[in-house]
Amino acid sequence: MLVFEASDDDPPPGIERVRALADLDLAPDPETLAELIGEAEVLFFYRAARGPLEEAFARAARLRWIQSASAGVDGLLFPELVASDVVVTNARGIFDEPIAEWTLGVMLSFATGVVTSLADQRERRWNGWRRTERLAGARLLVVGPGPIGRAVARLARGAGMQVSAVGSRDRDDDELGPVRGPGALHDALAAADFVVDALPLTAATRHRFDAAAFAAMKTTARFLNVGRGETVDEPALVEALASGAIAGAALDVFEEEPLPETSPLWAMPNVIVSPHVCGEFEGWESAVMDVLVDNLGRYARGEPLRNVVDKALGYGAGW
Amino acid sequence: MLVFEASDDDPPPGIERVRALADLDLAPDPETLAELIGEAEVLFFYRAARGPLEEAFARAARLRWIQSASAGVDGLLFPELVASDVVVTNARGIFDEPIAEWTLGVMLSFATGVVTSLADQRERRWNGWRRTERLAGARLLVVGPGPIGRAVARLARGAGMQVSAVGSRDRDDDELGPVRGPGALHDALAAADFVVDALPLTAATRHRFDAAAFAAMKTTARFLNVGRGETVDEPALVEALASGAIAGAALDVFEEEPLPETSPLWAMPNVIVSPHVCGEFEGWESAVMDVLVDNLGRYARGEPLRNVVDKALGYGAGW
Repeated sequence: MLVFEASDDDPPPGIERVRALADLDLAPDPETLAELIGEAEVLFFYRAARGPLEEAFARAARLRWIQSASAGVDGLLFPELVASDVVVTNARGIFDEPIAEWTLGVMLSFATGVVTSLADQRERRWNGWRRTERLAGARLLVVGPGPIGRAVARLARGAGMQVSAVGSRDRDDDELGPVRGPGALHDALAAADFVVDALPLTAATRHRFDAAAFAAMKTTARFLNVGRGETVDEPALVEALASGAIAGAALDVFEEEPLPETSPLWAMPNVIVSPHVCGEFEGWESAVMDVLVDNLGRYARGEPLRNVVDKALGYGAGW
Repeated sequence: MLVFEASDDDPPPGIERVRALADLDLAPDPETLAELIGEAEVLFFYRAARGPLEEAFARAARLRWIQSASAGVDGLLFPELVASDVVVTNARGIFDEPIAEWTLGVMLSFATGVVTSLADQRERRWNGWRRTERLAGARLLVVGPGPIGRAVARLARGAGMQVSAVGSRDRDDDELGPVRGPGALHDALAAADFVVDALPLTAATRHRFDAAAFAAMKTTARFLNVGRGETVDEPALVEALASGAIAGAALDVFEEEPLPETSPLWAMPNVIVSPHVCGEFEGWESAVMDVLVDNLGRYARGEPLRNVVDKALGYGAGW
């Protein structure tokens, strides 16, 4: 098994558990990847960009399976990989509840005034006339009710919110109740106090949140993004925040990451910028290693792998 | 009925509902209070300090009942009032769930990194190596499980936390399970990841959180105060935060309010300062008016009032 991108000096935490199960090589750079990929049956795609893999892919004669360390695989899938027989598995499941906690946390930070408190605090300003908003009873719209969006819905309902969902198609969901298809997005946005974007990035979801989407939202509503930055037309979001078309945003993902220093989002008082860490709880690498080790066992036994991605659709679980 | 402190220019929101039920006078200042109190049977104690009432109390020959607009009545009870036959009722109940939402919000703000995000944001710093902490599974100790503490416990359990409680006495509680008495406080503190102080202020609870209490806590633990500032030895708290004896604090109440500009708490990066508003949701005045109107009806019908305070104990509901 080959790991890209990793070195002996900076190995994936817990990778020693794999040594008992497979011959292990670490590729710290694109050159080593190109050199070693011809022998590899399994690739663990860890903290890597897809460019070097795409370039080396023609040499990957024995490659059967790629395990990603992420839930989103838009950063991995390239046309030759999609067209190939190579199986892709992701790390879905382990990030769901941590991301749901972040989402509940930012909603409560807006509603109960934590964001305002921290800003006032810098000026030593005591504003005892402020009011808080209740979260119980507020309406949350989950756009993209895959495993992450469903975990968000579950936690938000537990906190008394009214939750609805817009997914990839109209359906009746055992847990969520009626899920509406993409055509209902703007109507659903108009009714929401909080909107969480938990979409996978595909050709169809790119810029799903555009100027028209933000215009459909309440001026008092907040937009949260735990999906992918490119599902949002970021200049349109900045404009909606600046003009007061929406009331605030909490963003863990951006069109360009790290968020450029020149982005106006950094300085907006009604925005929480999070550096793509909302799922990266203390111990997440170990949880990913559990998935890899489990899948290596299945692979050795010739059993179906867990967390297989539908490469044509571009994601692992329906939403 | 007399309202102190209020004027025609600045009446309690919704007070017009009372005009149909009682003769209404508003006392905007201590002089008017002293002048009108001799005729009043009922006093609505609204946004007022007790000093003027204490001074005028000897003239309150007809006073039968005081309705407070707060849950905590430590700011109202003075010895002559406690010794008198005047019934005191408070506004308990309406603030419980909003305060619980604030408490969950600050815990999640620490755990999921919202506090760090907002600080990093000011420096346009992208720290993608940060980790979040899970709230599910973390241990919350509720000190003072009255109605507010119980609401906090309920919401925290709903979010997957492990909740225990230290109350006024050892008991087995239907909802909370075993509640330990004050003697178990330091042992309980040693096991907690989050500690919420929801104590009423009485002679017995003053400075319940002192240097020894903070020394008993984990260095990774956060202290939250939704009770009363004077239940905490504030210099000892500042020292515990500065020395790293505890990891952070979220404070809605302080020994002196507004918090003096010179307080070191304002500038501590691991502290959330909230200006005694955590229960003051949009619409709280109307909810207080519901209590007053309900009690005026009971009073007129000669029925027992709701939310009667045990003046000798210094609070309304057991904890």
